[in-house]
Amino acid sequence: MSNPKDSSHLLDNIAIVLMEPQYPENIGAAARCAMNMGISRLVIVRDEFPDREKMLKMATHKAAHLIDQLQHFDSLAEALAPFSQVVGTTARLGRKRRIENSPRYMLDTILPLLTNNEVAILFGPEHRGLTNDDLKYCQLTVTIPTADFSSLNLAQAVAILCYELFWGIMYSGRDMQAGPKLADSHELEGMYEHVESLLNRIGFLNTNDSTYWMRNIRHFLGRIGLRAKEARIIRGFCRQFLWYQEQQERKKQ
Amino acid sequence: MSNPKDSSHLLDNIAIVLMEPQYPENIGAAARCAMNMGISRLVIVRDEFPDREKMLKMATHKAAHLIDQLQHFDSLAEALAPFSQVVGTTARLGRKRRIENSPRYMLDTILPLLTNNEVAILFGPEHRGLTNDDLKYCQLTVTIPTADFSSLNLAQAVAILCYELFWGIMYSGRDMQAGPKLADSHELEGMYEHVESLLNRIGFLNTNDSTYWMRNIRHFLGRIGLRAKEARIIRGFCRQFLWYQEQQERKKQ
Repeated sequence: MSNPKDSSHLLDNIAIVLMEPQYPENIGAAARCAMNMGISRLVIVRDEFPDREKMLKMATHKAAHLIDQLQHFDSLAEALAPFSQVVGTTARLGRKRRIENSPRYMLDTILPLLTNNEVAILFGPEHRGLTNDDLKYCQLTVTIPTADFSSLNLAQAVAILCYELFWGIMYSGRDMQAGPKLADSHELEGMYEHVESLLNRIGFLNTNDSTYWMRNIRHFLGRIGLRAKEARIIRGFCRQFLWYQEQQERKKQ
Repeated sequence: MSNPKDSSHLLDNIAIVLMEPQYPENIGAAARCAMNMGISRLVIVRDEFPDREKMLKMATHKAAHLIDQLQHFDSLAEALAPFSQVVGTTARLGRKRRIENSPRYMLDTILPLLTNNEVAILFGPEHRGLTNDDLKYCQLTVTIPTADFSSLNLAQAVAILCYELFWGIMYSGRDMQAGPKLADSHELEGMYEHVESLLNRIGFLNTNDSTYWMRNIRHFLGRIGLRAKEARIIRGFCRQFLWYQEQQERKKQ
């Protein structure tokens, strides 16, 4: 039916990031299916390093090296630092059937980025999924379509998205034209900090609604796909403004 | 992004059939993801009825009714009797990357059949997959594309194919034109028995290679998509031939 394309190296630029996974078995099962689909980077954000034996049991010996090389971080910001595109997974809410961003839409969005960027697919904890605070790091969200019972098992959700990526990269006739290198999460977060300081200084944000406005600003800046240089320009402007403002304050004193 | 079509009733014509699943937890996990994807018929072929508690643990209370309504059979032939289309799942073998029948090919093949036929998606046991003897009941095989490590966890394989079906039926722009009602597995197996008797009688099959030739005959007859009436015609011809042949034998004596 289909012959694969020579694009398996693109899979190396994808990481599965699990935010506070509760059960080590699920981490193991996620490792196994990532491995099935040619994805070998697994990152977890969690207070404690999970029970190795329980992970290995579900990973099977074939995916044991993913567990050996498991990257473990305390904070999501740290875990996501190297990634230029973070895709957050969210469940369909309520009974609405419309899917905003399908797995196939995710595929079309990230395919052109994979040549020059590292992409993280971020999954929330089993019992509650990703919070709004987690989602602020994401440039894109994706929802796996489901029937009325929308709560997917974590490892099964990982399996479905890894399958979609593997299929799309290796077998689909989709356009693989390489897009630009974008700013990574570390660079973007530094920029957002400066933007927030500036907006606070000029009284645009007050403590009550700053989260709300910053989320909106992240939303539209996230959609642009900023290059590292552009993030530095925005940051430079904010720094300069803050410096200028301080000088004015001092003169007044 | 996408609005679903009003075609959820087609999901009722799909059943997940698990051949000799070893671990009740996997049956429960399969029930959960079938339920996630709007598929509510689960059939198992197994000597003993599996441990209910272990199944329920992984099914969660949301898919508990699938476990309550679990259909249990001793033989695969019995389990498959009502289905007109049986799709057998097979792993990619060795290092070859070419996929004969992808999940998307499966989707395109069974979509037109779903209005008037019951379709079974058949999965083999965890440790060895489906045997050639199991596959003889299948009109179609499907292989989930994987990287070099091709052995998928059973419940994850179920999740991926259920997702593909749910997506294809509810959200894709694929053609849903209704195809004909085909002969079911019970009718087909009756026909194959008669065909085999006839071929034995005329010495076309000998005991050494009858399995091999019958597999080939099943292969091309399976591809035709026989209607029930057509299966009866073939059967009638075989019966008549066998009767005629017996009369001839008697006359000789």
